[in-house]
Amino acid sequence: MKINGMPTRTIEPLADRSGVSIIDQTLLPFRYERVILRTLEDAAEAISVMRVRGAPLIGATAAYGVALALGQGVDLHRACGVLAATRPTAVNLAWALARMKSVLTPLSGNDRIDMAWAEAGVLCDEDVAMNQALGQHGAGLIQALAASRSGPVNVLTHCNAGWLAAVDWGTALAPIYTAHDAGTPIHVWVDETRPRNQGASLTAWELQQHGVPCTVIADNAGGHLMQQGRVDLCIVGTDRTAANGDVANKIGTYLKALAARDNGIPFHVALPGPTIDWSLDSGQAIPIEERRADEVSHVQGETADGQVVRVRLTPAATACANPAFDVTPARLVTGLITERGLCPASREGLLSLYPERRP
Amino acid sequence: MKINGMPTRTIEPLADRSGVSIIDQTLLPFRYERVILRTLEDAAEAISVMRVRGAPLIGATAAYGVALALGQGVDLHRACGVLAATRPTAVNLAWALARMKSVLTPLSGNDRIDMAWAEAGVLCDEDVAMNQALGQHGAGLIQALAASRSGPVNVLTHCNAGWLAAVDWGTALAPIYTAHDAGTPIHVWVDETRPRNQGASLTAWELQQHGVPCTVIADNAGGHLMQQGRVDLCIVGTDRTAANGDVANKIGTYLKALAARDNGIPFHVALPGPTIDWSLDSGQAIPIEERRADEVSHVQGETADGQVVRVRLTPAATACANPAFDVTPARLVTGLITERGLCPASREGLLSLYPERRP
Repeated sequence: MKINGMPTRTIEPLADRSGVSIIDQTLLPFRYERVILRTLEDAAEAISVMRVRGAPLIGATAAYGVALALGQGVDLHRACGVLAATRPTAVNLAWALARMKSVLTPLSGNDRIDMAWAEAGVLCDEDVAMNQALGQHGAGLIQALAASRSGPVNVLTHCNAGWLAAVDWGTALAPIYTAHDAGTPIHVWVDETRPRNQGASLTAWELQQHGVPCTVIADNAGGHLMQQGRVDLCIVGTDRTAANGDVANKIGTYLKALAARDNGIPFHVALPGPTIDWSLDSGQAIPIEERRADEVSHVQGETADGQVVRVRLTPAATACANPAFDVTPARLVTGLITERGLCPASREGLLSLYPERRP
Repeated sequence: MKINGMPTRTIEPLADRSGVSIIDQTLLPFRYERVILRTLEDAAEAISVMRVRGAPLIGATAAYGVALALGQGVDLHRACGVLAATRPTAVNLAWALARMKSVLTPLSGNDRIDMAWAEAGVLCDEDVAMNQALGQHGAGLIQALAASRSGPVNVLTHCNAGWLAAVDWGTALAPIYTAHDAGTPIHVWVDETRPRNQGASLTAWELQQHGVPCTVIADNAGGHLMQQGRVDLCIVGTDRTAANGDVANKIGTYLKALAARDNGIPFHVALPGPTIDWSLDSGQAIPIEERRADEVSHVQGETADGQVVRVRLTPAATACANPAFDVTPARLVTGLITERGLCPASREGLLSLYPERRP
């Protein structure tokens, strides 16, 4: 997607393999700065403090993290262990590391290093292609709604499952970009997505950069807007989808799914294949990351004179809990949008698109 | 309730009638400062910018605002008009003004002024008595749960319906204070309550001041905690209750009610009688205040060096929508807690407690 009119990817290897360029997403929307990851430790830190975030981009960063580690002479298995420990919920992380291990284990020396850079690049290109295909399938849902009414289609999304969460296109936002680029009138309700404000800071920023009309709302507001008939469709991403169609996504997704059902509004989840954890029979087994309390008690913003500062919102020494994800049961999901098409959120639905996974 | 161990009310007239002392709640939890309202304009401004907020306290402040206005020589009806225009959703505001008008219209001169101060004082004392009674009825719900299990009862609340929202005791928090003071072990999950953060700033502060254990969570987290069995009971307040038991309360309440129902958790709404709008057949007719966009895009907090500053969270020039309340339909409400006891959230339930309202 575009930044200042220029097509851009979230992660790009340097030509000389001395590092990998990422956007430091902790500085958005106040500063657009790219930083260079040069070591395994850089990559692990970037994932754990969320300079990069979003299931697909975490996977891509981990793949390049393996390449950086091998260049440092770090053992492949140790590198994968360090990277796997950064975030527990997104399955793409484990998927990307398993793929790197599988491809790299038979090789050694420079061959292994060459292959690591090549495979990470292939993984990124596949991510772009998958999300572009996913976007085309999902755009049909938006275009069908547009054809049935006048005015823009109002889509509500939670968190950031845009191109900033992937290598390009995004997952939940890919159908939106695709439909928008095709001329379909769209307006996006952007949940601010406390506590990390990925909606207010990242989704709003990338939609604006690409020219898609959007309005930021408190996470509390979506149910009311649905009651008022001001939401036509919800599309969210997911960090891990169980084989039965249950989806783990950013904390608060479950509440929006409940409201969508209560108001008869379609609730779709967009996911590339690697987000499916075929080993899990249901979402109940998905580990939910508990993050630091100060992500709730403190927030970062920009002062009127342009300083980016961190402020405390609560009384000093307040206890805060910070579960980062919740699980939306498949029964609340109208449908899944994948790179292979649409399907019901169910085991049979997923298997209809991924028949090679049939036992 | 207590501040630094001292029993305190949120609003207190000066003995010489030169003004009314309130807590400037826009400075909490960072500063505890009382300010003096000396004119009608002071009172109206305090309500509209939320130096005072919460349905009961808005009513009490409006009543004293009438007394201040009469002291300035302002016409009674003009004073009521100015005060009525400050906030649209809470019915206590209209109720308090109607009561003042009804009592004061037959009087004139100093008699009218004397009666205005007296009636505002009576209204405040009644508020305290009602909420204390409400607290005793509601505490039974908490104590019944405590008797059925070990460990503290986990109560989730949204926004601030504590003593800071009333003259004393509060509505939703009155049962919690009552049970806590009686020795029942309680832990409160405090929704931060974006965009104005009344939970993170006010509810957390007043619970801590009174010694009630609590944990602040993002508004997004409550559904997940309910799924995990970590919430035993929800209690919220309401700004206006329709005659059929539908309740308007702070934006996001509806989402928690949906989650409570989905997880079989009791969801109770605490309200003193003046919060009931008998003229409304359902909650759909309750006007929902749309507040300024910058309440969503900006937030106030304290920096590490103790400055209270306002920061922007969104990209510059982002559109934000800010509906301040939503309506939770009676079908999602397990029961109502009033100063006269508990009842189902229905027309018949309310009429059983307020039989004088039967047509």
